[in-house]
Amino acid sequence: MADLGPEELDVIGVGNALVDVLCHESEAFLERQGLVKGAMQLVDEARAREIYDAMGPAVEISGGSAANTIVGVASFGGRAHYVGKVRNDQLGEVFAHDLRSVGVRYTTAMATSGPATGRCLIVMTPDAQRTMSTYLGASTLLGAADVDPGLIKRGRILYLEGYLFDPPAAQEAFRVAAEAAHAAGRKVALTLSDPFCVNRHREAFVELVEHHVDVLFANELEICALYQANDFSGAAARVRRHCEVAALTRSERGSVVVGGDEIYVVDAHPVDAVIDTTGAGDLYAAGFLFGLSRGLGLAICGRLGALAAAEVISHVGARPVASLAGVAGRLLA
Amino acid sequence: MADLGPEELDVIGVGNALVDVLCHESEAFLERQGLVKGAMQLVDEARAREIYDAMGPAVEISGGSAANTIVGVASFGGRAHYVGKVRNDQLGEVFAHDLRSVGVRYTTAMATSGPATGRCLIVMTPDAQRTMSTYLGASTLLGAADVDPGLIKRGRILYLEGYLFDPPAAQEAFRVAAEAAHAAGRKVALTLSDPFCVNRHREAFVELVEHHVDVLFANELEICALYQANDFSGAAARVRRHCEVAALTRSERGSVVVGGDEIYVVDAHPVDAVIDTTGAGDLYAAGFLFGLSRGLGLAICGRLGALAAAEVISHVGARPVASLAGVAGRLLA
Repeated sequence: MADLGPEELDVIGVGNALVDVLCHESEAFLERQGLVKGAMQLVDEARAREIYDAMGPAVEISGGSAANTIVGVASFGGRAHYVGKVRNDQLGEVFAHDLRSVGVRYTTAMATSGPATGRCLIVMTPDAQRTMSTYLGASTLLGAADVDPGLIKRGRILYLEGYLFDPPAAQEAFRVAAEAAHAAGRKVALTLSDPFCVNRHREAFVELVEHHVDVLFANELEICALYQANDFSGAAARVRRHCEVAALTRSERGSVVVGGDEIYVVDAHPVDAVIDTTGAGDLYAAGFLFGLSRGLGLAICGRLGALAAAEVISHVGARPVASLAGVAGRLLA
Repeated sequence: MADLGPEELDVIGVGNALVDVLCHESEAFLERQGLVKGAMQLVDEARAREIYDAMGPAVEISGGSAANTIVGVASFGGRAHYVGKVRNDQLGEVFAHDLRSVGVRYTTAMATSGPATGRCLIVMTPDAQRTMSTYLGASTLLGAADVDPGLIKRGRILYLEGYLFDPPAAQEAFRVAAEAAHAAGRKVALTLSDPFCVNRHREAFVELVEHHVDVLFANELEICALYQANDFSGAAARVRRHCEVAALTRSERGSVVVGGDEIYVVDAHPVDAVIDTTGAGDLYAAGFLFGLSRGLGLAICGRLGALAAAEVISHVGARPVASLAGVAGRLLA
């Protein structure tokens, strides 16, 4: 593996900083609340309150797509940094604690006024699917001023979540960070996040993928939404012309990794029981990015992603409980 | 079963309102932090901060001993009310939500100034033991003014936690509530909470048990601490002269229920694997109190307690995930 320089970082992630509020409910709950199973919808504070009031007892646990990924990178033994905005409130402190306690560097200034720390209300149904309603809260305050080009150039890979395109100021932070990374000769990685998110920002995403993104993460629905394609192989062929590397995930059918002339079909890693699919894509990205940062081959990167995804879907919550370095074992030796 | 009148409640619980902050750590963590395994120690805000900063990633989940019990009573299908103090902050809202969302009535006014909502830092070690450091926070503001005698007289059983003796104003609330219950001809139940808590308030507890408590919950260490007895049978014989009913729990050896001339030895309910012992005593009390409120015999009450305890130790967290009415099934038919 390619070791880091003393000041170097494996991955810097930028995303919406959220605390997850998880509960178990029946399918009927989704119907009553008009929620689309498996999707992430944005809600305002009043609607978030309404859904929360209807939800059963919940557990609070730090989340945020890119933050989950960054925690995964740290769990593989990587040097990882997170950029995202919380308020100086109790959930903001919880979010910061849970990053730092696993060794992630996190220095974004907390907002001292404005909306509360963002949260994602996650309803788990008996089929292990999760349905998310996100109140962005303080995440909407992340802006270009929160991006330090001196930091960005230290990261081998800058990882951005598509969800960042929802709050306008964060979209600006996204662009500034991507430019700083490329100016320093670093790689820029993007996850499309969610098919609904792709539909909200399709033109901007196509432009980004064609001109500014080196490494793309997407699942089947997202890549098809991006190119308004009817079939996966058509979309995969198209992305291949635009990105240096694309890692396309297909749930239990594993992933397809495309890099120039190379194509690898990677099996999903087997799990005893799927308990909660929250974080599967986030953790796939963690394994893949850690491998890529350390110069491992694309097939190994895909296997590290599959391993990390398998760990996180085998328990409740979107962050690993086991050490991923331990789980990966000889793959990293 | 003896059904409730339209205005009647099964159990009203009074306790320190806390949010649990749970993490997994090794035994070495306890040593480094100077924590006594299995015990609950009170900490001030600065010390709570110190322990939290050293803790790994955590999960926030509503707790509080009597609150856990009251949630258990509701899960059995009982009509339950909780009295305890939080602040009007995010964790206070989480605490209130998690009670109300399972049908518990909770009307105590939130504090609008003073310390934050209390929390209990729980370290789970690989042996499934939990070690607790409690910052009482807003719980110290619970006082006699929070006790409504009109409410108390509607509850068949008033349930008080020994931990209430730690904050002085809550001790006063405890006494006012107990007097209101007895004045209305209701039963007063007490849990001794913790052997260290008993040692802090031994004389007051002996006086309470001899003169004011009808139903006592204690584990082996607690009842021996109360009477400074060396053996369980001596302590059990003594408590028998003072309380109408005493339910004495002995972990995996089950419980001994003493009521006048009746003595029942109740087996622990078998579990596949003990995951987290947090809440075992709280949920035993829930089953027992629900049975007692509905006029069931003491042996059945003990079995309902054992069932509820078994449910809660088979997963992480101190509140039931399954419906206890469902788990109890034909015992309640």
